[in-house]
Amino acid sequence: MDFSSKLLENAVHEMSQLPGIGKRTALRLVLHLLKQPNGQTMRLASALEDLRNSVKFCSRCHNISDVEVCEICSNPKRDDQVVCVVEDIRDVMAIENTGQYNGLYHVLGGKISPMEGVGPQELTISSLVKKAKEGDIKELIFALSSTMEGDTTNFYIYKQLEGLDIKTSTIARGISIGDELEYADEVTLGRSILNRIPFENSLKTN
Amino acid sequence: MDFSSKLLENAVHEMSQLPGIGKRTALRLVLHLLKQPNGQTMRLASALEDLRNSVKFCSRCHNISDVEVCEICSNPKRDDQVVCVVEDIRDVMAIENTGQYNGLYHVLGGKISPMEGVGPQELTISSLVKKAKEGDIKELIFALSSTMEGDTTNFYIYKQLEGLDIKTSTIARGISIGDELEYADEVTLGRSILNRIPFENSLKTN
Ligand SMILES: [Zn+2]
Ligand SMILES: [Zn+2]
Repeated sequence: MDFSSKLLENAVHEMSQLPGIGKRTALRLVLHLLKQPNGQTMRLASALEDLRNSVKFCSRCHNISDVEVCEICSNPKRDDQVVCVVEDIRDVMAIENTGQYNGLYHVLGGKISPMEGVGPQELTISSLVKKAKEGDIKELIFALSSTMEGDTTNFYIYKQLEGLDIKTSTIARGISIGDELEYADEVTLGRSILNRIPFENSLKTN
Repeated sequence: MDFSSKLLENAVHEMSQLPGIGKRTALRLVLHLLKQPNGQTMRLASALEDLRNSVKFCSRCHNISDVEVCEICSNPKRDDQVVCVVEDIRDVMAIENTGQYNGLYHVLGGKISPMEGVGPQELTISSLVKKAKEGDIKELIFALSSTMEGDTTNFYIYKQLEGLDIKTSTIARGISIGDELEYADEVTLGRSILNRIPFENSLKTN
């Protein structure tokens, strides 16, 4: 693309760095912003800057949080002996939406994926294992998506917990294999948490 | 959506103001930025701010330009008596890409669309008519997309030019009716400029 303006070219280039946004789409979005009042662009820019500069993660569950310990972790009414292991904040939001879960979360930040260069060190696995060894956890619920990476990650964590007295389970899959958690309907997802099965069982049936 | 962070919620909200970007997509894009180095978000934010704050439009053709008179308008090798009327910069880029056109452009900034509240005053039509009355233009090529809005806009301009000694033409449509110019392949688009027909003829055949 040959742009008549460096400013425009630069904005389109940066916009097209976002996943799934090609050059054409980026140009369309940027031209849209130009047709809107100045304030819209300024609000978008500073919202992104503010988030990136000031984002915090809960020191316990590693979920995105504006405070040191997130609302869920600091809620005395929640059962802190049950921990649900998820990939990212979208899964927390999806499960919270069901209203069926009263334990805490542990946000891994991703799944083990050698293809994408994501090893256990890139995730918050050691922090989870530390929590487990300190004896705070009675049950661990694996709620990663049931892809190969999800299964690998579950199994990796499971092996790290060997010898500890912790019940492990995976959420029951009413939703079809390979589906992303965040797209599941609330009822199905809520039920699959209630009907969670021991992790060992999921190994046998796979 | 219930966010655990106001900063995150705000970023997602602003991102989802962009056309075609829903809340889910916005969240995906924002979470992606959080996984990237700080610099990527900062570059995106300032590229958008810089464009919005400093964008200029060529004083002759109204295309986006970093200088007062754009490269095309100020190029002495181009035929300044032929003017191609287009909707926005994407059409200019598409036609320039063909390498088949040596005249100038006039960027309207949109099409007349009563449904969307866009009247002739919102576009740069009066500036075009003024140029035409000053006798600088020998031929006007209508290259708006052949939708109802495009046809309405062409015809509105055509009526404004009555009595002036200006040849009007529309680009030949090898590309199918209703297709957007910017998605046409270069060869077809280049040919349709070479084979442009008098505007009156296009009225008869429609
Ligand atoms: Zn927390
Ligand atoms: Zn110009």
